Order: sequence, then C-alpha cells, then structure tokens
Amino acid sequence: MTDAMPGKSASMMIVRAIKELRALLSAQRSAGKTIGLVPTMGFFHDGHLTLMRRCRERDGVVVVSLFVNRTQFGPGEDYQEYPRDFERDTRMAQAEGVDLLFAPTEHEMYPAGDATFIEVAGDLTARLCGAYRPAHFRGVATVVTKLFSIVEPDRAYFGEKDYQQLLVVRRLVRDLAIPVEIIAVPTVREPDGLAMSSRNSRLGPRERQAATVLYRSLLKAQALVRGGIRDASQIVAQVRDSIAQEPLVRLQYAELADPETLAPVERVAGPALLALAAHVGGIRLIDNIIIGG
Amino acid sequence: MTDAMPGKSASMMIVRAIKELRALLSAQRSAGKTIGLVPTMGFFHDGHLTLMRRCRERDGVVVVSLFVNRTQFGPGEDYQEYPRDFERDTRMAQAEGVDLLFAPTEHEMYPAGDATFIEVAGDLTARLCGAYRPAHFRGVATVVTKLFSIVEPDRAYFGEKDYQQLLVVRRLVRDLAIPVEIIAVPTVREPDGLAMSSRNSRLGPRERQAATVLYRSLLKAQALVRGGIRDASQIVAQVRDSIAQEPLVRLQYAELADPETLAPVERVAGPALLALAAHVGGIRLIDNIIIGG
Repeated sequence: MTDAMPGKSASMMIVRAIKELRALLSAQRSAGKTIGLVPTMGFFHDGHLTLMRRCRERDGVVVVSLFVNRTQFGPGEDYQEYPRDFERDTRMAQAEGVDLLFAPTEHEMYPAGDATFIEVAGDLTARLCGAYRPAHFRGVATVVTKLFSIVEPDRAYFGEKDYQQLLVVRRLVRDLAIPVEIIAVPTVREPDGLAMSSRNSRLGPRERQAATVLYRSLLKAQALVRGGIRDASQIVAQVRDSIAQEPLVRLQYAELADPETLAPVERVAGPALLALAAHVGGIRLIDNIIIGG
Repeated sequence: MTDAMPGKSASMMIVRAIKELRALLSAQRSAGKTIGLVPTMGFFHDGHLTLMRRCRERDGVVVVSLFVNRTQFGPGEDYQEYPRDFERDTRMAQAEGVDLLFAPTEHEMYPAGDATFIEVAGDLTARLCGAYRPAHFRGVATVVTKLFSIVEPDRAYFGEKDYQQLLVVRRLVRDLAIPVEIIAVPTVREPDGLAMSSRNSRLGPRERQAATVLYRSLLKAQALVRGGIRDASQIVAQVRDSIAQEPLVRLQYAELADPETLAPVERVAGPALLALAAHVGGIRLIDNIIIGG
C-alpha cells in the first residue's frame, strides 16, 4: 500500500508493506543502484537530516525507515510519549531527496506470534545505558537486524550520539556476517551545544536551558584531559560536579570506557569514550565525546 | 582459499572463506541463477543427498555448507565424537552435482569476541528436545541465521527428521523477515525404517538392530490412531511400552504436539506431531511422524 504525497510532486514513495518495499528495491538494485538505509524512530531533526544527506551523497537509493520500536522501550519508559509527527517527517524527508520512506505497521515488523530476538552479550550491552535499560539493546539489535533483512542495504547510517547503539550494531553485523557497511556520522548539536534528539522537543524552556550543562560538562572534562589529568575518577568527578550545579538535571551515569569494547577505563592513555545519561525534568537525555585521542 | 578436488574434474569448488564465497555467489546471482543452500554438519547419508537432489532440481547453484557447529552442542554432548569424514563428504557432494561446498573454519563462523546470538522464545524451543538441550536451538538459530547472511540463498532445504529445528528455522525466518524460502524434505529411512542420521554410524551392531524399535513404536502409535484411539496419553503409552521391550534403548521423551506450535496435544483431532528422543547405547537419536492427518 502506498500513500501519495499530499500537495507535492510524488518523488518520494511512502511504503508500509515489506513486500512492496522489496519489489521496489529489487528493481533499483537490478538497475545497478546501491541502497542506503537510515533507520529512525521519526520526529526528524538536523541529526536525522544529516544522516539522510550522507546517504544521499553515497548511495543511489536513499531509504529512511520510520518506526517507533516498542521492544527497545522498557516498562515505565516513554514509548507512549515519544514524539511523533508523520506529516512533518514526510515533508522533511522529501525535501532531503529521500527516495523511499518505509513506515511499517507494528504487525509488519512484529507479526502475531513473533518470538525471535537478537542478543549481543557482554560489556557492549551490559554497561552504560545497558545497566539502566536492561532490554533496550536487545530491542535495538532485533529491529535493526530485521530492517537489514528487509532492506538489504549496501550501507546503513547511524549517529554517534547513540554511540553504544552504534557499537552494538557494528558488533552484530560482524558476528552475524550481515553484508552491510555501517557508516558512523558525528553528533549534530544545537548552537548552544545540546546534542540533537527527538526527545529535546519534550523539554520545557527552563529544562531546555538546563540541558546545556550536559555538553558543557563533557567539554570541561575534555579540558582537564588536555591539561594533563589522566585519572578517570577525577575526570568523571568533574562531570558530576558540573551537573550537580544544575538543579533541574539529575545525572544517571557518567563513565569513561574503551571506545571499542566499552570496558571501564581507569586511566586515559589514548582515545576514551566519556558517556553520560541524565534526566532533565522527566526526560532522559544522553551525550558523549571521545577524549584523550 | 580454495582446495582443488583430488583426482576429480574440478566441477565442485570447496570454499573456506566467507569473502570468497560471496564473490563466487555474486557472479552467479548476476548471471540470473537462483541459489539453494543445504546446511549440514557433514558425514553425509542419503538424507543429506536427498536434500542436495531437491536443491539441484530447483536451484541454479547448489551450495552445501559443512560445519559442525559447536554452539548447538551442550556440555557433555557429543561435539568431539560427532562423526567427521571430509574426504568422503567431498566425493559424495561432488557426485550429487553440488556446485559449492562451503566448509568454513571455526574462526570464520565465530570471530574472536563473537557475542551475538539469536533466540526463538517459547514452546518452539522450550518443548521436546529443547527441554533436554537448553541451548541447542539457540545455537541452531544463530548458525542458520549466519549462514543465511553469508549465502543469501533463495531457498534452503531442511529434513523433517529434525522437525523441531525445521519449525524453529521457519519461525526465525518469518520473524526476522529473512528473504529465503524454507523447503522441508521428508525423512529418509533405512530399509528397516531407522531414520537416517550421521549418528547412526556410531551405533554398534546390537544397538543398530535395537534402534529399529524407535520407528516401529511410532508406526504402532499411528495404527492405534487409525484404529480410533484419540487420547494422547494412550498413544504415548503405546510408544513407551514398545520401547520398554528393547533393553538397549532408553526413552528420553515421547510426546504429542501441535505440528505448528508444538503446544501439547491432549486429544488427536487433526494432524499431530508424535516425536521422540532416546538413547541407544550412548547415542542419542530422534524420530517423529505426523499422525491423525
């Protein structure tokens, strides 16, 4: 089933069914075009649009998937409240030259009796966000693997804002020998440094202002490292102290980890991931930078 | 890396590396040929050869994978003792007109740091063999999914002797939207009815004779059903009684189950799976039939 684009020249197709998507992509593949995939949960911002542009530069067909994936939300998390605006998303994607917007139904992605999931074991899913969202990366790994089966992309584009997700996807692609190249795209930030996130739209004005402390705390930690401090506990303490000064922000974790394995880092001797998660008002935000590189 | 066939016209290629296999298959796919996959653990018998023939009849390229998959064996199971004869297998596959024998190394299938697995939850993996081999179907699901990623077959062929495995594979293919058609091929039996299995080669002469009770017990149960008996406990009791008369055989389970979901069947009102597992000497064998259909 295909929806026409209201009031636009219909250069972008909106596809709901796997079968139709496959038929369209098969024709494009036969014509020698490479296929790029940008997996999203919608409510697009400049981070998503940057992924679409990177994809548009390299691939013959740009496929954007839009699916708010219930299985990566835990009980009590914001699946219901996650922002959605399909009309706006379709306009934005079309303006970026997206060829196919794949917006499957729940049933198309999780047919009745669905019982299969993908698990990436170990530090990659147990640490950082995985410690606080126990089934999150299982849900991510499962939906991403399904999307790869459905789209069979040559390349798939992921933002570094979700750094841990990027590592999990890289690992499952390697372990399962999925023939797709994963392209990491740097975090896109607001002018005041806040990492772009669909969830930012849910912040009130005071929370939106308070949220800027997250990136500022990362930059202060980076300055410490550049000043010669190598001890992880000192660096993390700097992040904690910065954030403690902002009463609207409650830090969930700030950790230094190996940027490949996510193993804990005691002392910064090379590139290290500094990652954090915090609640701003009721909204959970994440951010990260690589320091010591 | 490719091994030449010793003393044969080299029509079958033996491929060890995923990368080489992909290059070969990509060329065949571009030439418009369909690709069929027969996944095996080697030590071929007529059951395997029948799968290869079905594949040869339908697909332009016949790929047989040969990999004794450690992750589907539990602690104390027969991974070490599982029969292997690569020279004989290559001769038999070549004689069947197999195009590519994919015999990957352990490291090729499970690279260092491998951490990803596929789980099919619920009755399909918890019941029957799953109750006695807790990680078995996880290992099967993972290796089969990897093989599908590597070979990207149009069709894959599985024997009904491993009926539960067939259901698990069908389910994961559906749930993960993997674009492959699963072809089920009926169990091939010895003249005396014993279901062919690589493990039969490990039976001594007395055990080999005793093992015939398995299929005989299934046929007796089928006769009961044809005679009007519908109560599952009576039917299963018939199997137990038959097998109890053979002192070399120790039944592990005999159960009636829904042939699609493996849910327990109390009363045979349509097609039902009658499945069993038993140890004959130290060797675990399985068999099944559909009754009441």
